[in-house]
Amino acid sequence: MPQRRRVFFVSDRTGLTVEALGSSLISQFDAIDFVRVTLPFIDSADKAREAVAQINSAHRDSGKRPLVFSSLVNDAVRAEIDKVDGLVLDVFEKFIVPLEQELGQKSMHAVGKSHSAGNAKDYNHRIEAINYTLSHDDGVTHRGLEEADLVLVGVSRSGKTPTSLYMAMQFGIKAANYPLIPEDLEANRLPPSLIPLKEKVWGLTIQPERLHQIRRERRPDSKYASLDNCRYEVAAAEKLMRQADIPFLDSTTKSIEEIATTMLHEAQLVRRVY
Amino acid sequence: MPQRRRVFFVSDRTGLTVEALGSSLISQFDAIDFVRVTLPFIDSADKAREAVAQINSAHRDSGKRPLVFSSLVNDAVRAEIDKVDGLVLDVFEKFIVPLEQELGQKSMHAVGKSHSAGNAKDYNHRIEAINYTLSHDDGVTHRGLEEADLVLVGVSRSGKTPTSLYMAMQFGIKAANYPLIPEDLEANRLPPSLIPLKEKVWGLTIQPERLHQIRRERRPDSKYASLDNCRYEVAAAEKLMRQADIPFLDSTTKSIEEIATTMLHEAQLVRRVY
Repeated sequence: MPQRRRVFFVSDRTGLTVEALGSSLISQFDAIDFVRVTLPFIDSADKAREAVAQINSAHRDSGKRPLVFSSLVNDAVRAEIDKVDGLVLDVFEKFIVPLEQELGQKSMHAVGKSHSAGNAKDYNHRIEAINYTLSHDDGVTHRGLEEADLVLVGVSRSGKTPTSLYMAMQFGIKAANYPLIPEDLEANRLPPSLIPLKEKVWGLTIQPERLHQIRRERRPDSKYASLDNCRYEVAAAEKLMRQADIPFLDSTTKSIEEIATTMLHEAQLVRRVY
Repeated sequence: MPQRRRVFFVSDRTGLTVEALGSSLISQFDAIDFVRVTLPFIDSADKAREAVAQINSAHRDSGKRPLVFSSLVNDAVRAEIDKVDGLVLDVFEKFIVPLEQELGQKSMHAVGKSHSAGNAKDYNHRIEAINYTLSHDDGVTHRGLEEADLVLVGVSRSGKTPTSLYMAMQFGIKAANYPLIPEDLEANRLPPSLIPLKEKVWGLTIQPERLHQIRRERRPDSKYASLDNCRYEVAAAEKLMRQADIPFLDSTTKSIEEIATTMLHEAQLVRRVY
């Protein structure tokens, strides 16, 4: 039986960063079965004491010392969490002292300086990009396509919508997307309305077997979903993109984050949201 | 003039985690003007040497030692980055040794163990949730509303769509959203189709001045956007939600991340994606 460990992510904010960091670290130990719990908004000594009680009780139940990844700006809150009977790894504690030394300044130790609601400019960019992306999803309109930072193309169900939304949400990038339909594939050229925007166009491709599986769930027994048709469409779309000199990525072998980050950097887009 | 510092985020993967971590840490020094650059997919010694050259050249241009936040699993790659003329803070290095000791195992030192494309189950949950959310945006249909993990309500432009999409994208939660329209406000009750789902309903509110500003951009000089109408709608929606005993959050004072995380935890929803 594999070793089983409880992992707690404790944060004075949302916990999203420390969750991502801790998840990435524990993924390096794949013989262990980790059970994850996030405790967000632990921003007072009282809440910290409750968190400690919860973590200690997990220890008693499981007999194994839990792992605690934390991000706690306030010293008093951190002091409480440090009392827990487990391995506590706090990112703030580990990094803030070398930063203070390097910068020759004390840090503010103020909770919620980033991602704060006060950041109205970021919020506006984000909402604007999401609205743009939603109204330019799946080629519904040509209008305003010239405003796009990026236009994604690919066959139906190759992952264009989630990727566009991720770019809008995470980076504030206006990402339109446009399907490559059988007529485009047959003509072996980009949809005519995209030709003037060629410099902004990126492609997505997908393995035919995976596409078949995805389409079959939506429309079983259709020609659209058949493996033969998926093979044809993917091969034709890749040929078209190569010929039109459109860079493309494979959504079967890359996560949405990887695709979005690659496009952001290779297209040298300016990120509007941090 | 404020001190200006270059900050580099160097990662063998997307860099999203180390960016979030580093951004949160530098936000604690608000007297300094930080200029951020992310260098993702630095997964070979050659790429690391190029990154070092770029960082050192930033140092020469600015005369200030850059900060380097890194997340590098491979020792050889990290050894190259460590040669940079700046302050290097590597999360992997800082945390992996105590984890190995605690777990009594060596880590795999394998790049890309988390967020990997191999994680097809996570990917499917995500896509399914995004599709669900898109097809249940803005109350377009009642069909399948019972499948929702969460139903967001609020007046037009209170932030329902971005919040729902974030929940779907980040957590794999099926989040429908439903507008509170003037008829609902006048009747002072939830839209009838939501009454059987009351346990899943969460509200969003917004400050009337902010709502006025957002609506004015879309429809200037309309009654819809007028400050008086925004004041009326917000007050009526809050009254309705209080009376119906629907918990609600204010999107003016909280980021999308904060709202989504709060709902996830308080509604005890099961996160399907990490």
